[in-house]
Amino acid sequence: MNAKEKLSRKNGAGLHICVGLDTDIKKIPQSLLKYEDPVFEFNRRIIEATKGSAAAYKINFAFYETEGSKGFDSLKRTISLIPNDVLTIGDAKRGDIGNTSQMYASSVFDHFGFDSVTLHPYMGRDSLSPFIDYGDKLNFVLALTSNPGAADFEKLKLEEGSFLFQKVIKTVTGWNEKENCGFVFGATNIDELKENIGLFKGMPVLLPGVGAQGGSLEETARSFEMNGHNAYLINVSRALIYCDASENFEIKVKETLEGYNKIIAEIIKSL
Amino acid sequence: MNAKEKLSRKNGAGLHICVGLDTDIKKIPQSLLKYEDPVFEFNRRIIEATKGSAAAYKINFAFYETEGSKGFDSLKRTISLIPNDVLTIGDAKRGDIGNTSQMYASSVFDHFGFDSVTLHPYMGRDSLSPFIDYGDKLNFVLALTSNPGAADFEKLKLEEGSFLFQKVIKTVTGWNEKENCGFVFGATNIDELKENIGLFKGMPVLLPGVGAQGGSLEETARSFEMNGHNAYLINVSRALIYCDASENFEIKVKETLEGYNKIIAEIIKSL
Repeated sequence: MNAKEKLSRKNGAGLHICVGLDTDIKKIPQSLLKYEDPVFEFNRRIIEATKGSAAAYKINFAFYETEGSKGFDSLKRTISLIPNDVLTIGDAKRGDIGNTSQMYASSVFDHFGFDSVTLHPYMGRDSLSPFIDYGDKLNFVLALTSNPGAADFEKLKLEEGSFLFQKVIKTVTGWNEKENCGFVFGATNIDELKENIGLFKGMPVLLPGVGAQGGSLEETARSFEMNGHNAYLINVSRALIYCDASENFEIKVKETLEGYNKIIAEIIKSL
Repeated sequence: MNAKEKLSRKNGAGLHICVGLDTDIKKIPQSLLKYEDPVFEFNRRIIEATKGSAAAYKINFAFYETEGSKGFDSLKRTISLIPNDVLTIGDAKRGDIGNTSQMYASSVFDHFGFDSVTLHPYMGRDSLSPFIDYGDKLNFVLALTSNPGAADFEKLKLEEGSFLFQKVIKTVTGWNEKENCGFVFGATNIDELKENIGLFKGMPVLLPGVGAQGGSLEETARSFEMNGHNAYLINVSRALIYCDASENFEIKVKETLEGYNKIIAEIIKSL
């Protein structure tokens, strides 16, 4: 099953929450520190508890790289636990000249075995094409991000009339010959999402910003469902994985995720 | 000695070549494959031969990440060989929301111990500030890159009149309160370099694109020297490290690097 099929099956079953494994050893329950690899043990329990209710898992490379090769080992072991029918997103935000992007693509897709990746568009087509060349993978290109700095460059107005992030969306849409591109779009400003949702042309959208960053899960899901756009993933990281600090934290994580799924199910039913 | 001092001492001594360790196990001399870690052995010999003539070493993360944790081990061992007075550049092209960039900064600067890093500007100020907060490090922000895709977004004309890459340069100049920012600017188009050299305001510039990508070492160095701008590094990767496939390849690498240094010395003398 390729990446797009995995996503479309989960989305078709009403599952749209992506569990963000931004696992920080300083934030996980203290009770895990007795394990040899506490980060892996934390991820193992989260995945075990949520694998039937998650639409995808997004693993944030930064949180593993900070421990060097030890972190990369935890990352690789974590991926091996994710069931084969659930999309894995390597949130690595890569992008470099062609021969270097080729190496990054090989790292994310071949070495770690991710189904999909997040990418920086700044360096243009040949920085993305080594990833896009993997026809069975999915490539989420940064469009409008969820952080305050999105205003600095992404929202600059171009001479031709659109904002830079809109130009990125339109341009990448033209590079989508293998139908394996999508976008990252911040869910922190619902009006911006509504204004731009038509630009996505049904391509998969990964939405960070819900939870710790203040975006609304309900309004985000409603915007997509009302537009008949089913290929979307709402990422929740900190607000979900650290919702309980007790020894059996995974029970509360599972309940919280199922609560999110219920909110989305009710929106779908109401339309 | 902080990063900027390292750079300024080497530049002051007329050294401007950055040795790019884009080490690919498929391209190194066959004679090294008998070693347990051929990538490390290749780097070790290059560093041993060139450490007196190099202005800096740039390590391209992609070439190590493609081997996962094993590659990260080779990377960390490689850094430990570089003399303390030579600038190390972690060519990682990172950039993410604040709490994630904090983790990336900790990876590059604390875990691996690099003096400097390359960064994607797309996500704006709060994606760069966790790096900039390290006052003793140097941050090379992508402005205009050396690849064909630079035309896709970097060279878009903004409503306010400048190109996106020029806006990035001007904006980052305003974020340089700790005087630890610089730029990546492709050396493939000498006219563009000449037209924009004044924007750098003397801040350090890292120039890829010479060698395999076709940029001219001589014209690049002359442009900076004629403008009285001494803080620059011309990166050469493939054209230098793979210039000889024999068993004693490092002799030819050293000679080639010294040849580059001589070209620059003659330019300086002629002015």
